[in-house]
Amino acid sequence: MGTSKLLHGAWVVTMDPDLHVYSDGAIYVEDDRIKALGPSSLILPSFSKQAHEILDLSGHWIIPGLINTHVHTSQQLARGIADDVDLLTWLHERIWPFESHMSVEDSYLSTLLCGIELIHSGVTCFAEAGGQHVEGMVSAVERLGIRACLARSTMDTGEGLPVSWDSETTDSCLKVQEELFSKFHGSAGGRIHVWFGLRQILNATDDLLLKTKELADKCGTGIHMHVAEIAFENKHVSETRNIEHGTVTYLSKIGLLDSNLLAAHSVWVNPNEVDLMAKASVKVSHCPASNLRMLGFAPIQEMLTAGVCVSIGTDGAPSNNRMSLVDEMYLASLIHKGKVAFTKGATDPSALPAECVLKMATTYGAKAVLQEKNIGSLEVGKKADLVVVNPNTWTMMPIHDPIASLVYCMRTENIDSVMCDGRWIMRSQKILTVDEAEVLNAASKASTELLKRANIHIPKRMNVCRSGCQQKNSI
Amino acid sequence: MGTSKLLHGAWVVTMDPDLHVYSDGAIYVEDDRIKALGPSSLILPSFSKQAHEILDLSGHWIIPGLINTHVHTSQQLARGIADDVDLLTWLHERIWPFESHMSVEDSYLSTLLCGIELIHSGVTCFAEAGGQHVEGMVSAVERLGIRACLARSTMDTGEGLPVSWDSETTDSCLKVQEELFSKFHGSAGGRIHVWFGLRQILNATDDLLLKTKELADKCGTGIHMHVAEIAFENKHVSETRNIEHGTVTYLSKIGLLDSNLLAAHSVWVNPNEVDLMAKASVKVSHCPASNLRMLGFAPIQEMLTAGVCVSIGTDGAPSNNRMSLVDEMYLASLIHKGKVAFTKGATDPSALPAECVLKMATTYGAKAVLQEKNIGSLEVGKKADLVVVNPNTWTMMPIHDPIASLVYCMRTENIDSVMCDGRWIMRSQKILTVDEAEVLNAASKASTELLKRANIHIPKRMNVCRSGCQQKNSI
Repeated sequence: MGTSKLLHGAWVVTMDPDLHVYSDGAIYVEDDRIKALGPSSLILPSFSKQAHEILDLSGHWIIPGLINTHVHTSQQLARGIADDVDLLTWLHERIWPFESHMSVEDSYLSTLLCGIELIHSGVTCFAEAGGQHVEGMVSAVERLGIRACLARSTMDTGEGLPVSWDSETTDSCLKVQEELFSKFHGSAGGRIHVWFGLRQILNATDDLLLKTKELADKCGTGIHMHVAEIAFENKHVSETRNIEHGTVTYLSKIGLLDSNLLAAHSVWVNPNEVDLMAKASVKVSHCPASNLRMLGFAPIQEMLTAGVCVSIGTDGAPSNNRMSLVDEMYLASLIHKGKVAFTKGATDPSALPAECVLKMATTYGAKAVLQEKNIGSLEVGKKADLVVVNPNTWTMMPIHDPIASLVYCMRTENIDSVMCDGRWIMRSQKILTVDEAEVLNAASKASTELLKRANIHIPKRMNVCRSGCQQKNSI
Repeated sequence: MGTSKLLHGAWVVTMDPDLHVYSDGAIYVEDDRIKALGPSSLILPSFSKQAHEILDLSGHWIIPGLINTHVHTSQQLARGIADDVDLLTWLHERIWPFESHMSVEDSYLSTLLCGIELIHSGVTCFAEAGGQHVEGMVSAVERLGIRACLARSTMDTGEGLPVSWDSETTDSCLKVQEELFSKFHGSAGGRIHVWFGLRQILNATDDLLLKTKELADKCGTGIHMHVAEIAFENKHVSETRNIEHGTVTYLSKIGLLDSNLLAAHSVWVNPNEVDLMAKASVKVSHCPASNLRMLGFAPIQEMLTAGVCVSIGTDGAPSNNRMSLVDEMYLASLIHKGKVAFTKGATDPSALPAECVLKMATTYGAKAVLQEKNIGSLEVGKKADLVVVNPNTWTMMPIHDPIASLVYCMRTENIDSVMCDGRWIMRSQKILTVDEAEVLNAASKASTELLKRANIHIPKRMNVCRSGCQQKNSI
């Protein structure tokens, strides 16, 4: 027997094609889908008899579930292992040793821990950038009750790779992913999609690139790939692959740019490449914190103007530390208001306005994960993925411009409840699907052991005193 | 009779000159000052008999109270009134009408509301950038139990000023401030300092600049001034005041650069001006979010290298929206790792490391507010201004590099308790000095009325539906 829920009295931001907002709105949910949506005065009388649960959300806001289009859930256990180090140390001494020593259980715990943070920040669907153990992620996503596009991190070439990854061949990479696809795609009641992963062009032969595209097309699924992350990548690609400007130009040449390519970061792209991406309907995942910290400033304004579908991602914990899409919305807006100061001598405080940032985190996110028919906005017939916001706190008050407040003031503290697939997965800031404290403990323990196993050493900072080192003048 | 408190079992980050950290540390506080500090094993047996309150803080961290060196507490009621608009609209149609219509009561409520947010983000001392009604701020600061350097916003010239401000003369500006100084400096048990305010050079005659400096020196207090905020300011100054590069060069020429000048923003300064600031021991308040959103990227790395004391500020609510020094620490680090991507083609993820950001928010902040002998670090003899952090949450776990975690992972949610001047002003995320809900209600009401009075209209966003506008296909 199905269940039905009637939420009413809320300020509802639908993000539908006409951007309707209901100042006293109601949503009727049956099983996993929205069956009716409109003013409480109309919806409440029509559906209150048949609803199993009726919830008065006066003073609260409802927005669509947010979509995080680039996150390494396997790296959640690695938060804090690579702060303030250069990129080579980051990759060779910290991240690769970490990832290559992970077990399926580590991956499971890491995804659980990351999922807790995602749900608290209002995320109902994420696109995994690619870890080692998709089966661990699958178990975690099933349990969390969230929606996900999972991918395996795939590399068949590259310098300095950990020994355990060095033996992978193009064929073995593809075979594993085909198996994962047939085993898990559509599982967890359809919440789990399996995608094909490509780590980045420096770790992929042309053979792998082309066959991945072929397979993804055959399966009708997406490809998740880091694209044009750092300037060095373009330089290397143009030198070794004999092309004019870099990864995007090359991917266009060999036919990889397509509507099922989710290109993460895409920082170092020139205007011609922006056009190539727009024409091919490539989806971009913009990761603001990771851009600032590690990669550079992606030309997001230019992409949006050209018609590229740009969504938002957090990237992984060691590239950002905060896995909050709420913070990333805030950052996205700030960065692109500020960056023209470099070229024009003044910022543009009107750039990337709140409405646009909200689209990036919802409807554009849904397009990026190839599920715009089902998620991304609150519309009759779509999946019931939604977030209840409590704005009545010192973090948001006073409120004069509510849509702007969602982007510029809202913090994770304001995310009150989260529904995914018609099921409450968080209520009153308590996740209902897993025991948060239990996961925190298990994940902390596992991460400490993993660092030992991987022989990762993090230098001590400041002067940690042991006993006997009382401060001068004490007493 | 005095009170005494003994906190023990915590991981204590002192920020003392040797950057001592106690992994199981204790602090003994008598009245308003730290009397002893060291390992729990030494401090606990020595002081447990005489302590009125003994608190086991196992699993918690203690850091010095954070110092916010640039905040417009009067603008808290204006949060959200000027999002996504250009600078002229921001100033002339929103901020000036808002500020010029404020009453003393509005200022009191605004500072209370802002103070709540500051305390929740671990701030024990702030420097007010300058509002209209210092007496309102004084009442609020007295009640909040926080420490503050208050200043009046002072302008004796400038184009397009609101009518009510237009009548101010140089002498009246100075007289009011002298009166405020003699009335309130040292009040609230010494927690309140009164500074001299200068809004910015475009709103100050040379007479006002020079006499302000003279008075501040005579009183032994500081001057808070917006300096080199936007490129236009430099252009205007060099044209009208016949000087080579702008505000800092000009202030140097007329003798205003000195150790008691707190220069907010200082975005548009050239290398020579950085040297001038360093030589004169000028203090800078860096406001990361406001830099990104409105002003541009200040050369903070260059300033620190030159020996300038750079601290951190939030700026006002309409320039930022989040008044959280915790978020600003995170942003400060991100911006300066990222900005070299523009000049060098790659970010520098090792720039502005966590230790440096923590100094900016504590010891450098104390220097900026001219109180380094009393606050900024946890040391015997200093004031007991401290923050208890609870790191055991999904926002921070796992923790592999705790000092880095304070900057890159910590959020306001992790600020558990705050002590200022030896008195708990927040415990377990509940502020003890004011009723938060009451302030929120009163402040919201006052801000709505103020906007009406000031005739400020904020355009509606999206399509707000009234009744009868049910979503298509409903039912």
